[in-house]
Amino acid sequence: MGELQSALDVIAADRSVRVVVIAGAGKAFCAGHDLKEMRANNRQEYYEALFRRCSKVMLSIQRLPQPVIARVHGVATAAGCQLVAQCDLAVASSDARFAVSGINVGLFCSTPSVPLGRNVGRKQAMEMLLTGEFIDAETARERGLINRVAAADQLDAELQRLIDAILAKSQVAVETGKAMFAKQLEMGIEAAYQYAGQVMACNMMAHDAGEGIDAFMLKRPAQWRHS
Amino acid sequence: MGELQSALDVIAADRSVRVVVIAGAGKAFCAGHDLKEMRANNRQEYYEALFRRCSKVMLSIQRLPQPVIARVHGVATAAGCQLVAQCDLAVASSDARFAVSGINVGLFCSTPSVPLGRNVGRKQAMEMLLTGEFIDAETARERGLINRVAAADQLDAELQRLIDAILAKSQVAVETGKAMFAKQLEMGIEAAYQYAGQVMACNMMAHDAGEGIDAFMLKRPAQWRHS
Amino acid sequence: MGELQSALDVIAADRSVRVVVIAGAGKAFCAGHDLKEMRANNRQEYYEALFRRCSKVMLSIQRLPQPVIARVHGVATAAGCQLVAQCDLAVASSDARFAVSGINVGLFCSTPSVPLGRNVGRKQAMEMLLTGEFIDAETARERGLINRVAAADQLDAELQRLIDAILAKSQVAVETGKAMFAKQLEMGIEAAYQYAGQVMACNMMAHDAGEGIDAFMLKRPAQWRHS
Repeated sequence: MGELQSALDVIAADRSVRVVVIAGAGKAFCAGHDLKEMRANNRQEYYEALFRRCSKVMLSIQRLPQPVIARVHGVATAAGCQLVAQCDLAVASSDARFAVSGINVGLFCSTPSVPLGRNVGRKQAMEMLLTGEFIDAETARERGLINRVAAADQLDAELQRLIDAILAKSQVAVETGKAMFAKQLEMGIEAAYQYAGQVMACNMMAHDAGEGIDAFMLKRPAQWRHS
Repeated sequence: MGELQSALDVIAADRSVRVVVIAGAGKAFCAGHDLKEMRANNRQEYYEALFRRCSKVMLSIQRLPQPVIARVHGVATAAGCQLVAQCDLAVASSDARFAVSGINVGLFCSTPSVPLGRNVGRKQAMEMLLTGEFIDAETARERGLINRVAAADQLDAELQRLIDAILAKSQVAVETGKAMFAKQLEMGIEAAYQYAGQVMACNMMAHDAGEGIDAFMLKRPAQWRHS
Repeated sequence: MGELQSALDVIAADRSVRVVVIAGAGKAFCAGHDLKEMRANNRQEYYEALFRRCSKVMLSIQRLPQPVIARVHGVATAAGCQLVAQCDLAVASSDARFAVSGINVGLFCSTPSVPLGRNVGRKQAMEMLLTGEFIDAETARERGLINRVAAADQLDAELQRLIDAILAKSQVAVETGKAMFAKQLEMGIEAAYQYAGQVMACNMMAHDAGEGIDAFMLKRPAQWRHS
């Protein structure tokens, strides 16, 4: 978590980074917290600090200017499933599996339920949280936990298509939109429209919107001004 | 937008109108704002006023007493997709396609993201907003952006079935419910129940509820008292 | 409703009850309020009190420490469909059907729309509320109104699998999680993470979390300490 937080902090300030992909280095995407380490520090203050740190990582993903894509292979369980849910987008191998399995060890996946409950339906989230059972990639896609599924040997190609689609866009438009989207979802619809309208008017005054519209009208490629 | 706003204002006060259908006259449902006009008025105040006007149209649809159905053929892009998302119901031709494509011209579809993010899942909305890619009618239906899909030559028949189903209902019940539904969704569940219970008790005191229940018990057709 | 409320009140205080199943005794799951009784008491105060009582039952289900599963066969209409929507989980027979059909008798299903609108998409809910039409069990599952569908003669076996999955878990973890989940969903994401983190730290200090993690590491079955 510490390394992930540091990486996110560095990326947040690096205008040359346009898209972030979070992938697992081992045989799984992420299996969540280290249970052994947790048990070895059996104090409430330790756990409170631990989950605060974890939540900070998650909120850093949401606050990151750049879009964050989870590249999921193998299992994504507990805080690993939370990580998928918290990312802006997710692409998974068809053999990937998802569970919020803390309940199996007597620990309800409370913090994972925060982004999970904002990705999938209530009963769907509740079933996963109470049973700890896995869902497969296709089910995760249907419910909205992930965006795309690809055969294992096509996963990186599918991921690349998504990355390329975003890289072809204006950086200022992408970043303006990502920051606005999560914020307006927490507002009532009237306040959301007012806020989104102001953001969009600002976006229109940026170089890229003028360039993009001019290019569109002249049927030529747009020349974005990246940072 | 001005004509649509005027029409909505007139309809809002016309008790003889029971259901509203928004359809496109040309080869598409709606392709959103006129980019050329936008570029020709390149001032932030102009854009702020433009998006305020657009948001007012959208909120007028939500506040309209009558249910509003989008009849979608061809493409619904950017503010056109927003219009579909904002309607209470939507029926689309099987060859209809939906995109929030502003990102392609450097302008993130911020105001369209307001109703879109309240119709479909977060990651599904985010993918559309960041990639600008189209989804087809069947995908839009599965995700909740539209209600029904029909072959192009069956679109009006399917639309008519939906209209007829609503016309067969009590006007006071339909209008009471439409106004209540969006409002309670923005409340916590306790406040929502309290509010919905009061609305429903009022609805019970209207002529039509008594008539409807009596007719149901006597197995005869109800005689609604329309305005 | 009175009997259901009493049963829920008793169960709420009975630590020996681990999971609650709500099932219909007759040929349907539940067809909602008794319309004849409602018409026989045609006063606004009566209706206000009636819907307050009904909402109290529904909120009691949400506040009940134990998970509540709807076992649905036949029809679930109006407040019967509300009951399904309000339960934490739902399993239905493949021939079960769901409608919020009050609109057919001039009474918009306002209170049912509260949990329905928190289970399925807005347009999906609005279509059901305005048309009063039935959806089948498979459609209800796809949209998130129910969790599982089984052939009529397999319904109890499927229900039992869900019950068994929950009974195999730690009671304190299940109850901690159920109470937390609905609450955090009504918060902004930052407040939700803070709250969920505190709940999870408390959960970690309970006997069962330590026992569960130790058992997992030692590859032995956990011995939960049930109340």
